[in-house]
Amino acid sequence: MNISEKITALRRLMKQQGWDAAVISGTDPHGSEYLPERWQQRKWISGFTGSFGTVVVTHTHAGLWTDTRYFIQSRKELEGTEFELHPLRVPDAVDYPQWLAASLPAGSVTCIDGECMTYRQVQLLYQSVKVNSGSIVNRPSFLDEIGRDKSPLPLSPVYVLEPKYSGRETEDKIQWLRRELSTRGCSHILLSGLDQIAWLFNIRSHDILYNPVAIAYALVDSRYATLFITETKVGEGVKKTLRAQGVDIAPYESLTALLKGLSPDSVFMADGDTLNHSLFQFLLSRFSAAGVKDTPSPVILAKALKNPVETEGFRKAFLNDGLAMERFLFWLEKTLEQDIPLTEKDAADKLSWMRTLSPDAMGDSFQYIPAYGPNAALPHYSTAAASYTRLEKKGLFLIDSGGHYLYGTTDITRTIPLGPLTPLEKEDYTVALKGMIALSRAVFLKGTRGTHLDMLAKDPLWRYRRNYGHGTGHGIGHFLCVHEGPQDIRMTWKDQELLPGMVTSNEPGIYREGSHGVRHENILLCKELEENEFGRWLGFETLTLCHIDTSAIVVSLLERGEIEWLNRYNKSVYEKMVPYLTYEESRWLQQKTAALT
Amino acid sequence: MNISEKITALRRLMKQQGWDAAVISGTDPHGSEYLPERWQQRKWISGFTGSFGTVVVTHTHAGLWTDTRYFIQSRKELEGTEFELHPLRVPDAVDYPQWLAASLPAGSVTCIDGECMTYRQVQLLYQSVKVNSGSIVNRPSFLDEIGRDKSPLPLSPVYVLEPKYSGRETEDKIQWLRRELSTRGCSHILLSGLDQIAWLFNIRSHDILYNPVAIAYALVDSRYATLFITETKVGEGVKKTLRAQGVDIAPYESLTALLKGLSPDSVFMADGDTLNHSLFQFLLSRFSAAGVKDTPSPVILAKALKNPVETEGFRKAFLNDGLAMERFLFWLEKTLEQDIPLTEKDAADKLSWMRTLSPDAMGDSFQYIPAYGPNAALPHYSTAAASYTRLEKKGLFLIDSGGHYLYGTTDITRTIPLGPLTPLEKEDYTVALKGMIALSRAVFLKGTRGTHLDMLAKDPLWRYRRNYGHGTGHGIGHFLCVHEGPQDIRMTWKDQELLPGMVTSNEPGIYREGSHGVRHENILLCKELEENEFGRWLGFETLTLCHIDTSAIVVSLLERGEIEWLNRYNKSVYEKMVPYLTYEESRWLQQKTAALT
Repeated sequence: MNISEKITALRRLMKQQGWDAAVISGTDPHGSEYLPERWQQRKWISGFTGSFGTVVVTHTHAGLWTDTRYFIQSRKELEGTEFELHPLRVPDAVDYPQWLAASLPAGSVTCIDGECMTYRQVQLLYQSVKVNSGSIVNRPSFLDEIGRDKSPLPLSPVYVLEPKYSGRETEDKIQWLRRELSTRGCSHILLSGLDQIAWLFNIRSHDILYNPVAIAYALVDSRYATLFITETKVGEGVKKTLRAQGVDIAPYESLTALLKGLSPDSVFMADGDTLNHSLFQFLLSRFSAAGVKDTPSPVILAKALKNPVETEGFRKAFLNDGLAMERFLFWLEKTLEQDIPLTEKDAADKLSWMRTLSPDAMGDSFQYIPAYGPNAALPHYSTAAASYTRLEKKGLFLIDSGGHYLYGTTDITRTIPLGPLTPLEKEDYTVALKGMIALSRAVFLKGTRGTHLDMLAKDPLWRYRRNYGHGTGHGIGHFLCVHEGPQDIRMTWKDQELLPGMVTSNEPGIYREGSHGVRHENILLCKELEENEFGRWLGFETLTLCHIDTSAIVVSLLERGEIEWLNRYNKSVYEKMVPYLTYEESRWLQQKTAALT
Repeated sequence: MNISEKITALRRLMKQQGWDAAVISGTDPHGSEYLPERWQQRKWISGFTGSFGTVVVTHTHAGLWTDTRYFIQSRKELEGTEFELHPLRVPDAVDYPQWLAASLPAGSVTCIDGECMTYRQVQLLYQSVKVNSGSIVNRPSFLDEIGRDKSPLPLSPVYVLEPKYSGRETEDKIQWLRRELSTRGCSHILLSGLDQIAWLFNIRSHDILYNPVAIAYALVDSRYATLFITETKVGEGVKKTLRAQGVDIAPYESLTALLKGLSPDSVFMADGDTLNHSLFQFLLSRFSAAGVKDTPSPVILAKALKNPVETEGFRKAFLNDGLAMERFLFWLEKTLEQDIPLTEKDAADKLSWMRTLSPDAMGDSFQYIPAYGPNAALPHYSTAAASYTRLEKKGLFLIDSGGHYLYGTTDITRTIPLGPLTPLEKEDYTVALKGMIALSRAVFLKGTRGTHLDMLAKDPLWRYRRNYGHGTGHGIGHFLCVHEGPQDIRMTWKDQELLPGMVTSNEPGIYREGSHGVRHENILLCKELEENEFGRWLGFETLTLCHIDTSAIVVSLLERGEIEWLNRYNKSVYEKMVPYLTYEESRWLQQKTAALT
């Protein structure tokens, strides 16, 4: 079926069922950013392959709601279909719940797949449609009824992340979680977030591209800790290790049956922001409103506060990663010098391969963004394999990439001058760098939120009246998802303070449509500095180790303190790398990291 | 009666009535910061004279909840009474609704004076006490039942602020408000905020210390605009002017009678954040929930966006005010040189007198804070008239003051070196100044909130690991309240963008208990800068005209851009002042404003 036939088939089903609208989310029962094929319903119905978006089909309209990152890509992918783009994160954006409220007749019926939307998302949708007496029907996997084939669940084996990497025994984490439950008057917690489960039980798997997690649920009470998972994925050794830490295994599909057997007096800690709607409703129907406490899962914050073994692991991961990056940059320069033809994709593939050479490398942490020239004006540029652009010996090449290692996950963006630059390219390179340096050097009181810190990265750009539309920083998991909460650094208010042990990206940029794009991204570890009469002071350690090319800098735009930071940074990169480099590489890096004066 | 007798009498009443707690707010039916004697109930029961706080009395406890500004003052004023201080705006602060919820038995009864609390405050209180099955009884003026004498309403005459000062005819403002009502599907708006009423009808009065407003209500619908006010306050000329602009006058007490006569189909725009609880409940009982739309009054934002006549008036007011300040600073220096004894209060009185010499001066805009040496470590220092400290020829003297003029209101803090300073005093003086300069020079995208901008003032201090506990900026009325919303600049999130025409203070400080305090305060006008591909850029014009003493500065702590800003600022002060100064004064100011190199 092509897209048009799929829409027609869906509308036929909608008519039969009396639905006015169908909402197709882009996620799975676990709220994942990257999904196994089984749940890629949005891609199936619309052809859009981005990582964020919602599809809505009514009898007269088919729309995709997505944000700035995917405007260009979605326009290309939706071309020739009935789907229209509804832009989000722009002034006066209208999200799909509000659009539905305004577009549907009174008393309308909207169908959802409640397994693939969070409880909170459905609540918000309901708030909107109920104003005009609308209602919601929950019909899991309704696209299967019009011919979508459900792929089977992935079957990647599960393995244990040893304490020398995780820094904390599973049993200890479970005991901590039980204390949290008890403090908050709960008897059970049900977890559906795959990275939360992986962290809690110290397990990893590769069910999902880029995210080293296993499809599973977890249920913990004062006596039992149960992992619901396809059992064939768990070998005898892993089972034994888990059992020794007090973890039982049960079939993935047996969750609701087990829940039905629990005492009706159970009190659940259930996170409406991560649990899917169907499951949350099931809990409400079974244990009543008083038996379901809708609060953020404490695992999210605990996971973000890296322990000393994890932070030491991150340092090692960034050393590996920096070596791969420096070798890649060296190779890129030499290859272009020899006029060997290279596309953006060739470069990205080479970098990915460089990473596989590192000890304990566990794959890419997301789909690389290799963007040359005007392509880099799209912060999340991606294109069909055949249409990547050839690199030339001029202009800027932005490459955003990252890897997993057994002891940490990385994410780095470098913008590489490939030859002569325009004055504006150099200015933008320098001004964006000022933003990155300002955040790197931040000193802040305990209690400071990411929204506060965001201004430090923005201010140097704003003084030159330049800006970027994306967030400045996201949390990063420890050999887990490259995007994790609860903290972030962006203009939008989020009431989460930055805390020692959090690992967060720092990635200001400047993008000029049709011309070029710049982004500099380092990863920061939040640390205690000191306590004085004014409070507890925190700051950052930069984990990323990869030189910043000074040849693209307009030195007169930098202040003394910025130059000092940059020289210190590049020097430390050189010193940490040099023991592992060839003579030729080290001579090259020495030049690249020579101090600016 | 002394405080102890008053508490005993209140508890007797509570026992008779079956109340477990009584809440006494510090405001009036209009939500005012400064109140007429008639409503100073908190002061009567507790003796506390600050401008912010809530008293709660139970059968076993008497408490005052107030914030950092008043910790020292309240401790002094509550000394020897049963009242205990409950600090707010500190880590782990417990506000009185949460305290009551935790302290009262199940099914408790809390008595309030619903005329002197906003609807929102009572809602929040109810949310807390209802968890433990508590209820609330609304008994206006219950302290009168135990012997408090209600003073009569103040009777200051009302006068009209002419269009040459207000910049906009009353009729035009009313027409605008009617369009706002119609857009939002409302037939009526009821206003109780005194500055909102003064702005809407272009009237002023002096019913309240420091705030040039009249005690009144206002009701506007598509045909009528009615001012509810004690009629003897409004002379024939004013009545005629108001009538010509379409405003009717009705007795202050006749409001509810008139409301009762309105069609039950009326739809009210009613601001639960400013309307008092009794009045809001009355509307709900009369017009049902659908007939009362609880939204912020549009007058608050309109009032904050100063029109060109108002901004020009502000510039004139700051010229007058700067002259008074410069003459005061000159006098202070000369007087101390002659070893004439002066207390903090003598200095404040002199400055107040200097302001009265200005054309169109309309009195002080708040109670001056003249704080010498260690006293300045209290950001809101005040003390009994007899115990003000004598100024010496050393250390720092902080004076925070302001005036009203027919064409604008001012607020300024200068920290004045009276002689030799310690290295720490100089450092703190310089570092706090860096914060003020940073915010003055801000360039920001439309959409930026005060919470974002706050970091610009904080960052220079934080780099030296210093901080201040108060907000950085508050809105300022146009010949109205010296503190006004909706915008502010502080760490706490407020979802209000800074907009062109807003006038906001910029007042970072550093305070060292037992030693000294520094604060530098200028007033900023938000302005459009330009629009480019990244968005609309805004910035500030500094309205305040009074030199910043460079003798206290550690020059090595300033960056080149900061020195340039300071030199430009001091130079512009000199140039604007010099036509009005005596020869001796101008020679002195020339020296004071000599460029730092």
